[in-house]
Amino acid sequence: MAPAVLGITPPSGDSAANINNSHFAGETELSKSKFSQTLQTSMPSSAHQTQIVTDETTIDVLENNGPAQRAQHWVLNPPRPPGLWDELKNTVSGTFLSHGEKFKSLVKQPVSGTISMLGTLFPILVWGRDYTVAKFKRDLMAGLTLASLCIPQSIGYATLAKLDPQYGLYTSVVPPLIYAFMGTSREIAIGPVAVVSLLLSSMIQKLEDPEANPVAYTRLVLTVTFFAGLFQAAFGFLRLGFLVDFLSHAAIVGFMGGAAVVIGLQQLKGLLGLTHFTVKTDVVSVLEVIFKSVHNSWSPYNFIIGSSFLTFLLITRFMGKRYKKIFWLPAIAPLISVILSTLIVFLTRADEHGVKIVKHIKGGLNPSSIHQLQFDSPHTSEVAKIGLIVAVIALAEAIAVGRSFASFKGYHIDGNKEMVAIGFMNIVGSLTSCYAATGSFSRSAVNFSAGCESAMSNIVMAITVALSLEFFTRLLYYTPTAILASIILSALPGLIDLNEAYNIWKVDKLDFLACIGAFLGVLFVSVEIGLLVAVMISFAKVLLNAIQPGIEDLGRFPGTDVFGQVNQYPMAIKTPGILTIRIKSALLCFANSNFIKERILKWVDEKEDDEECTKGNAKGRPKLVILDMSSLMNIDTSGISSLEELHKKLMLHGTELAMANPRWQVIDKLRLANFVNKTGGRIFLTVGEAMDAYL
Amino acid sequence: MAPAVLGITPPSGDSAANINNSHFAGETELSKSKFSQTLQTSMPSSAHQTQIVTDETTIDVLENNGPAQRAQHWVLNPPRPPGLWDELKNTVSGTFLSHGEKFKSLVKQPVSGTISMLGTLFPILVWGRDYTVAKFKRDLMAGLTLASLCIPQSIGYATLAKLDPQYGLYTSVVPPLIYAFMGTSREIAIGPVAVVSLLLSSMIQKLEDPEANPVAYTRLVLTVTFFAGLFQAAFGFLRLGFLVDFLSHAAIVGFMGGAAVVIGLQQLKGLLGLTHFTVKTDVVSVLEVIFKSVHNSWSPYNFIIGSSFLTFLLITRFMGKRYKKIFWLPAIAPLISVILSTLIVFLTRADEHGVKIVKHIKGGLNPSSIHQLQFDSPHTSEVAKIGLIVAVIALAEAIAVGRSFASFKGYHIDGNKEMVAIGFMNIVGSLTSCYAATGSFSRSAVNFSAGCESAMSNIVMAITVALSLEFFTRLLYYTPTAILASIILSALPGLIDLNEAYNIWKVDKLDFLACIGAFLGVLFVSVEIGLLVAVMISFAKVLLNAIQPGIEDLGRFPGTDVFGQVNQYPMAIKTPGILTIRIKSALLCFANSNFIKERILKWVDEKEDDEECTKGNAKGRPKLVILDMSSLMNIDTSGISSLEELHKKLMLHGTELAMANPRWQVIDKLRLANFVNKTGGRIFLTVGEAMDAYL
Repeated sequence: MAPAVLGITPPSGDSAANINNSHFAGETELSKSKFSQTLQTSMPSSAHQTQIVTDETTIDVLENNGPAQRAQHWVLNPPRPPGLWDELKNTVSGTFLSHGEKFKSLVKQPVSGTISMLGTLFPILVWGRDYTVAKFKRDLMAGLTLASLCIPQSIGYATLAKLDPQYGLYTSVVPPLIYAFMGTSREIAIGPVAVVSLLLSSMIQKLEDPEANPVAYTRLVLTVTFFAGLFQAAFGFLRLGFLVDFLSHAAIVGFMGGAAVVIGLQQLKGLLGLTHFTVKTDVVSVLEVIFKSVHNSWSPYNFIIGSSFLTFLLITRFMGKRYKKIFWLPAIAPLISVILSTLIVFLTRADEHGVKIVKHIKGGLNPSSIHQLQFDSPHTSEVAKIGLIVAVIALAEAIAVGRSFASFKGYHIDGNKEMVAIGFMNIVGSLTSCYAATGSFSRSAVNFSAGCESAMSNIVMAITVALSLEFFTRLLYYTPTAILASIILSALPGLIDLNEAYNIWKVDKLDFLACIGAFLGVLFVSVEIGLLVAVMISFAKVLLNAIQPGIEDLGRFPGTDVFGQVNQYPMAIKTPGILTIRIKSALLCFANSNFIKERILKWVDEKEDDEECTKGNAKGRPKLVILDMSSLMNIDTSGISSLEELHKKLMLHGTELAMANPRWQVIDKLRLANFVNKTGGRIFLTVGEAMDAYL
Repeated sequence: MAPAVLGITPPSGDSAANINNSHFAGETELSKSKFSQTLQTSMPSSAHQTQIVTDETTIDVLENNGPAQRAQHWVLNPPRPPGLWDELKNTVSGTFLSHGEKFKSLVKQPVSGTISMLGTLFPILVWGRDYTVAKFKRDLMAGLTLASLCIPQSIGYATLAKLDPQYGLYTSVVPPLIYAFMGTSREIAIGPVAVVSLLLSSMIQKLEDPEANPVAYTRLVLTVTFFAGLFQAAFGFLRLGFLVDFLSHAAIVGFMGGAAVVIGLQQLKGLLGLTHFTVKTDVVSVLEVIFKSVHNSWSPYNFIIGSSFLTFLLITRFMGKRYKKIFWLPAIAPLISVILSTLIVFLTRADEHGVKIVKHIKGGLNPSSIHQLQFDSPHTSEVAKIGLIVAVIALAEAIAVGRSFASFKGYHIDGNKEMVAIGFMNIVGSLTSCYAATGSFSRSAVNFSAGCESAMSNIVMAITVALSLEFFTRLLYYTPTAILASIILSALPGLIDLNEAYNIWKVDKLDFLACIGAFLGVLFVSVEIGLLVAVMISFAKVLLNAIQPGIEDLGRFPGTDVFGQVNQYPMAIKTPGILTIRIKSALLCFANSNFIKERILKWVDEKEDDEECTKGNAKGRPKLVILDMSSLMNIDTSGISSLEELHKKLMLHGTELAMANPRWQVIDKLRLANFVNKTGGRIFLTVGEAMDAYL
């Protein structure tokens, strides 16, 4: 059963034995000398124009020779590509252009310009115009739901960050308000989040012990928050949003999963009512200290209260997922748990029987913390480094949250503007006793389900939290700390995305390695090491892909002039006597050029024993090697000298080397290195033309 | 003056306005469903076969549809590419195959197999068969010339390595002998070299002070040599030769230049007869200590002797380069200088007037040093690290030397075999009081000029050095140390290659950055930091090139189906209403996918204002975006979701997205991620076919 494609004879046939070799070389030489005459004249000044201005010599070349020669002329005489400097200039001007244009319009039309500029800085001025009472009603409901979830979570995350509980509440007042004025996302819920709280405590407690010296520790946290905000705003202004992309999706999935487990382990302290705990976050240290403590001093009452409410929270969470209509149940369940458990402890005076309680929470709105920022401590460089890490992680979470909801609702989020908003809210936050805030995955989902329409729900939430701070902090005196642990624990499953990890495994094994590397790094070493491992594996993967020293066989699609890899397209037909090789790498550089050269030479040698080739030829060795350079983005000095050596060695054995379809940078470098003149310049526009010229 | 190319109308014409959009989409859907039927059947087991076996459904598809549909079928249903595991297995088996085959042949034919195996291990058994008296005469002359240069240089390099002078001579006896039996290069001259000596002293003196504790220091040097040999041999056996390639050419040029300057500065100690010196190697520290010392204690006689002989050496060097016939003059000039200066000092008793002399050199052949190797010291891990750095630098120098002469004479050097030879010679060297040896640039050039025929010249040299060690070391008692400094100084210009640095600047600015980074790093910080900087810049460049978030406009070459970048080929013509974009990067991954997506969307938006497009269309916005994916080597999960988002956003504005020529890994990942089904699968074999399907 012969498939249709086999009926077509490849244009090359068996005629490979009758090559007029000298004719081929001679013609190339001839046209080359003509080309060099026209070299200077055929460089148009504007690269974008579609008409070319040529002199008479060029027309002569074009008319006297076939299309292959014409194409070769095109290949060998491109305009110079933009240099490193031009590329940099373009990138920078492209990045800052919008700033500049806005400024120009401001100068031209001061009034409307100012309004439009304010509108860019404060999107609330734009969406506020179309804001209706109906929308406000929905935002009010969403904001209240959000607040009921936010208050217990904020207190819990503050204890995770080893701060006094009121700092969590403070962080749910100022940052959401500022974000509401400056941010572009409608669904994001701003406030303290688990991963950032863990990051802060795990890194800062190496500098200062939060239990021995809580005041100094708090000052460091606020200073880190200030630096984080500064970095975030700077990223936004300098349009460095892409930096956040350097945390690959796989790395984030692994990191979040690892962080969730670490956070969960930290909660065992509250859940078991332990007094002694470790400052380390890795699994081994934490489990060790827990096993030791469990034998000595743990209070079963704490565990009973904590785990029974955790069961309640997990059941409501499950129900909320199952029946979309009662989405509010898991949202207010934490508040219900807090109220119930506080009542139980208050009525039974369980705190006298070993149940640990929150005790006094300082009431009143956010106090100023300007004087708590510390820039002259010996730790300042370390603090700035922690600020940078916190900034990146917080941005990654916020932008991931914002983007996913925006793409769901079909509107656009401006990454750079978001960074400015988040940075600004953290700077102001650090001056008003808030620690690093960002967009929370779980609360944003609640906000979305509750039907929020705009950032107004954040305002409603902030006001509600502010009111609680002013009036209700006394009511939380008897709240058991175990309940805070269960609230945090109940939010963790959302951070572990096994499904996505499986997807990554399915699509890309190396991506999965980055994911699992981040996970294990966070789990067994520390949060920073986990991040570092993930970023390094991600970039190692990019490097590996870019310089993989692979080559692949090409064959002609029957009846066309198109060539494809024979493994990918089994229907592609190889031409006897000609070896068509495509370089698999994006760069022919120091790291792979030698390897690639050796591999090509090995292939050529192997073809001597290949039956298929010996059929049509006296000697099996290919007479021509065509190197398809279309994948090569760039080449360096090592790459060029490898090509020269390859050419030399192939010539020694009577094999010709032709190159096809070099990219702009590549052909330019080859010309600069005088490669074309040294080797005779057998460079063609396409593989097909290289083959036609030979046959 | 209209050039010829403008006479050809692009096949697209102005008909872009009349698109039968639904028909196009419908047909794709139809053929897609047929494709899925044939998905399972068209995966041939052997990827290398050129005939394909297809079932009747496929033939049905092929016959009922045009070539474009057939091509799309090919694109969408490739066999699965080899997975990560297969790739690894292939690489490993490819690497070790030759070992395995040799072993098999050994089992089959014990006698001839053993001989051929011995021949592989000891190439001297192969070339020794054809060795003639005439060849030996030339090797004898070359070897004697080499020895006359080698003896003074070895003593000088030993002082540079902060060892007693005899260690330099030891190192010129055992390693060259072993290399002569195992190595494949004919011209390389083995022995101590300047850069490795500097590396050893600069790194080991951080662990142990060579002046306070010379015995312990020497033990560390020998242990480092042992580790270096072990690493080198392991690289060879495991075929990790490519690791040496990771030092890019540009990095080596910069590193060598920096090392030459640092070595030169170190020689000022001997030249000025200073007693106090610094252990640091950076320019600032060295100049500081020299300026301080010059005011206190320096001996003008040392300087006079040193600088006058340095002038003599440089003049002979210049003459030797100018007049090729007296190549032997610069080669024996160092020995002449040593003899003359020793005589002068002996006759004038200048050592009593402050001229520093070598004094006692321990005579006799290499003593055993097995018991000096130390593997239980607290520094062992540090020593192994230094061994690794020394191993890589020594290999880089030896292989660069070997390759350049081999390619000049037209024979092949097996990098892996060289590594085994060099590693073995250093292991044996470390057991016989030798420090790390490698191929010397300057002496290899002398060997070559002296007409050496084989590694026999190394044997002659080693025997001559051994005789000198046995009988002549007493004669060197009065040799002034300043003369050793001038001999080292006179060899340094060969390490500084300004010409090559200029070439690198011309061809590649970023390569030059790596070069200058290595140079400045070595000069101002330390030798290791210089290396690290160079390697990091080199890899950063690879990364930058691989993930540059660039896209480029394609246009059709008049009268063909070939597309090229319009900036590179100004004669390429864009089709109105269609935007053909090629991704410039090799990977669409976490680090650039978002940026590329945004850039494409921006381009599409910009086209709305573009005059050229508005001509033929009611609305200027392109109706079709063709994404040429031929450069994309791979894609990751972030890249796939970016493509999905791009498709979604373009559809929102009524623009279609078609993709052309995806590589094997890319189409496979797109299929795994179910991209084709989600978006409708508009993926074509070539840009031309994508365009034809649309028009």
